[in-house]
Amino acid sequence: MGAIITLTTDFGLADAYVAAMKGVILSINPRATIVDICHQIRPQNIAQAAFILSTSYQFFPKRTIHVVVVDPGVGTKRRAIILRTPLADFVAPDNGVLSYVIQQSATKPTGINHPKTRVPKEMTAIAITKPEFWHTPVSTTFHGRDIFAPVAAHLSLGRPPGVFGEPLDSLTILPLPLPQRVGRILVGQVLHTDTFGNLITNIRENDLSGGEITLKIKDKLISGLSRTYTEGEGLIALIGSSGYLEISVREGNASVLLGAGVGDPVRVKLNDKKFYQF
Amino acid sequence: MGAIITLTTDFGLADAYVAAMKGVILSINPRATIVDICHQIRPQNIAQAAFILSTSYQFFPKRTIHVVVVDPGVGTKRRAIILRTPLADFVAPDNGVLSYVIQQSATKPTGINHPKTRVPKEMTAIAITKPEFWHTPVSTTFHGRDIFAPVAAHLSLGRPPGVFGEPLDSLTILPLPLPQRVGRILVGQVLHTDTFGNLITNIRENDLSGGEITLKIKDKLISGLSRTYTEGEGLIALIGSSGYLEISVREGNASVLLGAGVGDPVRVKLNDKKFYQF
Amino acid sequence: MGAIITLTTDFGLADAYVAAMKGVILSINPRATIVDICHQIRPQNIAQAAFILSTSYQFFPKRTIHVVVVDPGVGTKRRAIILRTPLADFVAPDNGVLSYVIQQSATKPTGINHPKTRVPKEMTAIAITKPEFWHTPVSTTFHGRDIFAPVAAHLSLGRPPGVFGEPLDSLTILPLPLPQRVGRILVGQVLHTDTFGNLITNIRENDLSGGEITLKIKDKLISGLSRTYTEGEGLIALIGSSGYLEISVREGNASVLLGAGVGDPVRVKLNDKKFYQF
Repeated sequence: MGAIITLTTDFGLADAYVAAMKGVILSINPRATIVDICHQIRPQNIAQAAFILSTSYQFFPKRTIHVVVVDPGVGTKRRAIILRTPLADFVAPDNGVLSYVIQQSATKPTGINHPKTRVPKEMTAIAITKPEFWHTPVSTTFHGRDIFAPVAAHLSLGRPPGVFGEPLDSLTILPLPLPQRVGRILVGQVLHTDTFGNLITNIRENDLSGGEITLKIKDKLISGLSRTYTEGEGLIALIGSSGYLEISVREGNASVLLGAGVGDPVRVKLNDKKFYQF
Repeated sequence: MGAIITLTTDFGLADAYVAAMKGVILSINPRATIVDICHQIRPQNIAQAAFILSTSYQFFPKRTIHVVVVDPGVGTKRRAIILRTPLADFVAPDNGVLSYVIQQSATKPTGINHPKTRVPKEMTAIAITKPEFWHTPVSTTFHGRDIFAPVAAHLSLGRPPGVFGEPLDSLTILPLPLPQRVGRILVGQVLHTDTFGNLITNIRENDLSGGEITLKIKDKLISGLSRTYTEGEGLIALIGSSGYLEISVREGNASVLLGAGVGDPVRVKLNDKKFYQF
Repeated sequence: MGAIITLTTDFGLADAYVAAMKGVILSINPRATIVDICHQIRPQNIAQAAFILSTSYQFFPKRTIHVVVVDPGVGTKRRAIILRTPLADFVAPDNGVLSYVIQQSATKPTGINHPKTRVPKEMTAIAITKPEFWHTPVSTTFHGRDIFAPVAAHLSLGRPPGVFGEPLDSLTILPLPLPQRVGRILVGQVLHTDTFGNLITNIRENDLSGGEITLKIKDKLISGLSRTYTEGEGLIALIGSSGYLEISVREGNASVLLGAGVGDPVRVKLNDKKFYQF
């Protein structure tokens, strides 16, 4: 079957780890279409992988299978899971790497700031425990190749998730940093720095009132929202292509210019251009 | 339909931007074969993207669709275009990124040193204006995902270019640096530095008289043309695989050795090995 | 035919060299599935390419065609070859890049420390000499595009290796560094540093006696084998996913921590935890 399988890992491109996974997948389902989402997640950075996945999986056809292997606990008792949502299937370690997926697909709040969350009603989660679908011998250090890849490939042949193991009630979830409102000030932070040096924050378009804003990052003020990367001079703020407020600089690198990166605070004043304390 | 779509961008490989484009394409045409040409174009470097594309697109099957998204003007009034040539289709911003394609495919000179050029007779150019083929909502910052990818995918299903917008008479073109002849001296420049540090110039095999040459770059002289990278000692000059004169060093990096890069002048003396002023 | 063709090169991802090869392949066999193994082999590093290939090709479906283009001798008299093993086909320069493949597939020792080795009985080697299958004009500097890619594509259509040239009796092979045993000390070396900074040695699981070991690298001692990357504190040794002894550090980079890399010696004392001279 011509299913689509995507891969997101921290394996980089200088080794053959990704290729070994692809070989295993194609050995089971030669007709699978394999698409790389990203292999340059910083080593063992679960939060970054979760974010990168969250900005891309929804653009793939329904029932695409997304494999995520950022897995510092490989070989330990951390669970391996399949998560089936109304849109897609995910095969990953149960270490929080699917936090945004669970949050985005859920129709009700899911206690996002707790380390475990109940599996949303419209989703099914399975603990991967049945070794008959694994690549043997199973190494203790490369479950991407020996467990996640073959499970994804068998899923792509139409096997139901339940054959791979037992249903789960709850999943590990990251304490995703949500912006906090303090009066008219919204305090967020940088979630991601992209290739161009754009600083993508955790503040979403919906969090803004729609009026004028003034933004402060690293003691610099930015007034108003630009519509494109070429509007305005110097530092600008705009709503990026994933719906997050981001800070950019025309034909430059905002991250380098500001010396700012993931975790740095961003303060936004809503609806009022004049203020002295911010 | 099993069409081939290639992608050339400055998005890098550390983000999911390229993957989002692939997801959109596969959502429209699940049977498309997507091939990466290059995603490491330096940010917003239209000339580099134009060159990279020009060294590869002609090796793909006829009627391959080439998508190029190096697009500093995204969201502004710069046009998005489809260019149909006798060999292939191109989907790109109208910012000069197709300059070499237009020059290479054209059977007549096309006023290459002017900012706009007439569309060569054997080509068709279309302004992409019909939103019914776009991915909605259309962002103002990521037309790669929202316009270029879906248009390419619909093209790959066999839709004629005309359904996507209106015909154009002229296109934006870069002032491509052509080598200048001053007596027996040909003055060119470095167009591209490749992964190995080879310096690829804008001088083509046809520009040389076929006789002996002496080349000067950064005060270093190179006599004669080598046939392979292992002929000669130290710095060598040879005709590279894309037909351009290039400067290389055996088992070394010519760019690092010479401290030379894009834009640096290269002087070639034709047909005479003895000369004092050069 | 929907054959699989993999590519391993030192071309990097910033140029269109890899894309040109893919274009040539798809022009001959549009239904080929092309998979990248690695394009970040250090320039002209045949030993690294040989190792990377050896950790991945066996995970691909039987009769996959593996193309390797790390080819410092391109354009010289070095031979281009097809090697058919019971598992797969390889298309590469005859410069030792298939050394591990020959060693791994061979059922008898093949004089691995000599520069040439007889082709193992269960394999067929062919010198690629028939230009009718090449991409013309053939450059002297890019046989990846002009010879290896088109030959692999024609192979993928089911043509027998013999049509591409003449059978060979012997092949070039690297002097692969094998661990040496001196009493109870096994002296090996680092073969490869992976993306995570793990130091992969040339000592295999079978070389260890199964008992306790103590390992020494750069004056640091490591006692015992861990099972996973998270067992133990500081530096650990474990059997990695390709069956080699490797040195790692929990949530860190062993290569950076130790200042160690390819070629550095690793000494392992077998079966005895107490010793003073090592």
